[in-house]
Amino acid sequence: MKILIIGATGTIGQAIRAKMQDQHELILASKNNSEHQVDITSSKSIKALFDRVGKLDAIVSVTGNLHFGPISEMNAEQFRMGLNDKLLGQVDITLIGQHYLNLGGSITLTSGIVSDEPILGGANATTVNAAIDGFVKAAAIELKNNIRINSVNPTMVEESREIYGPFFPGYEAVPVAEVANAFVRSIEGPQTGRVYRVW
Amino acid sequence: MKILIIGATGTIGQAIRAKMQDQHELILASKNNSEHQVDITSSKSIKALFDRVGKLDAIVSVTGNLHFGPISEMNAEQFRMGLNDKLLGQVDITLIGQHYLNLGGSITLTSGIVSDEPILGGANATTVNAAIDGFVKAAAIELKNNIRINSVNPTMVEESREIYGPFFPGYEAVPVAEVANAFVRSIEGPQTGRVYRVW
Repeated sequence: MKILIIGATGTIGQAIRAKMQDQHELILASKNNSEHQVDITSSKSIKALFDRVGKLDAIVSVTGNLHFGPISEMNAEQFRMGLNDKLLGQVDITLIGQHYLNLGGSITLTSGIVSDEPILGGANATTVNAAIDGFVKAAAIELKNNIRINSVNPTMVEESREIYGPFFPGYEAVPVAEVANAFVRSIEGPQTGRVYRVW
Repeated sequence: MKILIIGATGTIGQAIRAKMQDQHELILASKNNSEHQVDITSSKSIKALFDRVGKLDAIVSVTGNLHFGPISEMNAEQFRMGLNDKLLGQVDITLIGQHYLNLGGSITLTSGIVSDEPILGGANATTVNAAIDGFVKAAAIELKNNIRINSVNPTMVEESREIYGPFFPGYEAVPVAEVANAFVRSIEGPQTGRVYRVW
């Protein structure tokens, strides 16, 4: 398969590459440090990326920024940042990308455990991640040409525990290879409208 | 209690008023046809509303627009409309409104059944409603002064069946008075971080 990975340089993106590069043709994109650059908050930038790479069998998105901070001090502009980035960015990858997929292709987005397990300072993150898991369920019933769509909803990965551990007291971490497996399952498997929780 | 209802003229807003007006002081707001006007896509307009009405015991939001249309033709600007209106509008009512609530006050937002039961043309609606249900769970763990927050997630109401029925084949409709009861439960009850599904 010809697979585009947007967010290819992150911890999860690298783990997906390690697991899939021997069997598939991977096209790597990210904001700055990959062969292909893309700003997911810009439809123009996303469209230009798809025009450059051509027809695909799978699109993987493991990217997107959120706003973190106490709700007592939060304002709409801060909240909007997360909506426009991790949420609308991944939605727009889907809206544009659907037209570049071969018959039976797939789209896999990334949400995260705070969708269901809120943490302090994470109101924007919970909202955005719950929204992404909702979006794939709705998009799955409409996409044409047998195109499938799923999300992977990971908990903290062991490889990032040093950075994120303090925000997730008592949470079990999982090896990033397990999260990468959920992406393989979405890309190579038959399911659609699924949220693969890796917790 | 002194209760602000934003979206007071809609089918559900009217049912809430009918059920609560004898026991409480209701302050009515909506985009055009209430005593108080508010544009929920504008932080300035929301702030001006709260400044006018002063301290409150409860805030109810039963308002917000969405984008409906086939995903194969949808673009980011259309999707952003729903994010900025029903989602960010209600989030912003919360972000600003929290500072105008008395001790132990409450905020009740409105989502809808397509959060979990997608319909054709409803990708934006599913995303936004799932996001709202997520938001209240996250906000509930952070709000100060014993302020509570819940959402009411209604299915189609019988009073709107003629308009919405074709989009919900085989769905049971509920009397709008049942939906209004869920708002009473949120406002007068003790719970927080709850999604009251009326299906």
